[in-house]
Amino acid sequence: MRIALLAHEKFPDRAKTAVGVMRYGDHEVVAVVDRDNAGKRVNDLIDDVPDAPVVASMSEVEDEVDGLLIGIAPIGGGFDESWRPDVRNALERGLEVVSGLHYFLAEDDEFARLAAEHGGELWDVRKPSPDLTVADGVADEVSAEVVLTVGTDCSVGKMTTTLELVAAAEDAGYDAAFVPTGQTGIMIAGWGNPIDRVVSDFTAGAVEEMILEVGDDHDVVFVEGQGSIVHPAYSAVTCGILHGSMADKLVLCHEHDRDSVHGYDQELPPLPEYVSLYESLAAPVHETEVVAGALNTRGVDGDDAAREAVESYADTIDVPATDPVRFGMDEVLDDIL
Amino acid sequence: MRIALLAHEKFPDRAKTAVGVMRYGDHEVVAVVDRDNAGKRVNDLIDDVPDAPVVASMSEVEDEVDGLLIGIAPIGGGFDESWRPDVRNALERGLEVVSGLHYFLAEDDEFARLAAEHGGELWDVRKPSPDLTVADGVADEVSAEVVLTVGTDCSVGKMTTTLELVAAAEDAGYDAAFVPTGQTGIMIAGWGNPIDRVVSDFTAGAVEEMILEVGDDHDVVFVEGQGSIVHPAYSAVTCGILHGSMADKLVLCHEHDRDSVHGYDQELPPLPEYVSLYESLAAPVHETEVVAGALNTRGVDGDDAAREAVESYADTIDVPATDPVRFGMDEVLDDIL
Repeated sequence: MRIALLAHEKFPDRAKTAVGVMRYGDHEVVAVVDRDNAGKRVNDLIDDVPDAPVVASMSEVEDEVDGLLIGIAPIGGGFDESWRPDVRNALERGLEVVSGLHYFLAEDDEFARLAAEHGGELWDVRKPSPDLTVADGVADEVSAEVVLTVGTDCSVGKMTTTLELVAAAEDAGYDAAFVPTGQTGIMIAGWGNPIDRVVSDFTAGAVEEMILEVGDDHDVVFVEGQGSIVHPAYSAVTCGILHGSMADKLVLCHEHDRDSVHGYDQELPPLPEYVSLYESLAAPVHETEVVAGALNTRGVDGDDAAREAVESYADTIDVPATDPVRFGMDEVLDDIL
Repeated sequence: MRIALLAHEKFPDRAKTAVGVMRYGDHEVVAVVDRDNAGKRVNDLIDDVPDAPVVASMSEVEDEVDGLLIGIAPIGGGFDESWRPDVRNALERGLEVVSGLHYFLAEDDEFARLAAEHGGELWDVRKPSPDLTVADGVADEVSAEVVLTVGTDCSVGKMTTTLELVAAAEDAGYDAAFVPTGQTGIMIAGWGNPIDRVVSDFTAGAVEEMILEVGDDHDVVFVEGQGSIVHPAYSAVTCGILHGSMADKLVLCHEHDRDSVHGYDQELPPLPEYVSLYESLAAPVHETEVVAGALNTRGVDGDDAAREAVESYADTIDVPATDPVRFGMDEVLDDIL
């Protein structure tokens, strides 16, 4: 699928979804729509993704494109009215528009009408499927090994770790699948249930349903984790993913020097406690163990200091560890598979 | 509020909501609507609740009534069309109709129109408030002691234990509040968030919101727990309630001889493991401890055998225990408050 990525005024540093899609998605990105950087090339701004032109509006995007993907998420998840001409243009051309906003484009009268008139499609990835239901406790029946990333907090790198694991496993010759659970992961994968938006009773069931969908067609399934099991607001989502996935193995993700819950007045417990908490909580539903660690060292200056931080992290949680971005997942892949 | 309870063909044994409302609610029940038992009295059928006539239809209910409460929940939560004349009659009289069904009465065209025409009200207790959001992690700031019932499985008696705790605390002179989390509890209390129906990201937030609402006006708040922390489908709800409530104390509810998850092929872990799991999972958010046990001995013949089962349960989990229905909560109230 050839897509344009909408990322007005935020590309690349505050366009996590756009950059994630460029880095990990199977889409061919034909243009980034960002009025602030129009005229530049993507690789003028960021270098580890395929190059593409940056244009000021959707009307400047060449004809050979199948979809427009909203690649930024403003605080609150609203729709910025300055984007309306771009979405309108895409729908008038009969394209698919994909959005992870809280504001559902399919419920916008003009967009719904244009999509119907011109044969375009609107996919709000945050809107859960109406067919979800409670878990049957059978995710362990798939033939694939199921590996779940779990975290010490939000935003420590679980999605990146999961996607790097998929890439490393494929490089090593495994047939690997990615099971996304959040809107960016879903936009990268092109399918998936937004676990944080489903009815709480269906949290585990919505994960199980995805594992059943892909688990017999692959050697290994890597499930994107969310939140943390001791997060004061999001632990329910984490717990539902842990039990619904019935993961065989866990990878514990952490950010170096993070010592309190982001945005909350709560200290993180000692790191080894996460290992025992995740394992003991999972065990009655499905035995599992933390087999590797992924440390986010974006705040560490220099590879030597980062290497030291990773080694200390590995010692603390008593399993091999790496920084998936800085050092790659190859170093620990054998410990996982 | 004077109410009629709809319980066609299921009163009393399969009318858990109706009986719960009669036993624990503040409503004055003026009639039970059950075509199978019409002409009898409530106390001909069940003896530990206030008496009332049983009638065949809502049209036979005397005028001095404020509401009709749907006191039964068919499998699947649908609306039985044979109840339509009763609901229609109530709405034509301008009454409030309260329902815990999955099928929302307010979205039924005829019911919505009748309610509007006659000034009646429709309250679907399973429909979450649109104002819910993520937890701030501040439920521990209320002045009341917060006590949460937790369980080894679904349907072991958490709601009953919670309501018996409220009654025992009030008898002992405490100003106690009940925080309901499921539809029957909400119908008994007349307010509350249906935690199993909220968006998973808001699970903890929806509990926190209720505790903030009542926690400064009472000595103690008893929170109704849901599910179990190792339930393959519902653990997300349990985890969100545990962290959102920031409970100071836990009461562990169990049914005698239950050794596997109801409806699932999964053994329960040893009982002491529940104590350590609930406590260790809660601690990073808010320190808590299991201070008492509530054992459901409905399957045990005779008080002597039940007493023995309770004592064995207390020994196993190493805290005082009782059966709230058979022996009352007084026995352990001092250990809780």
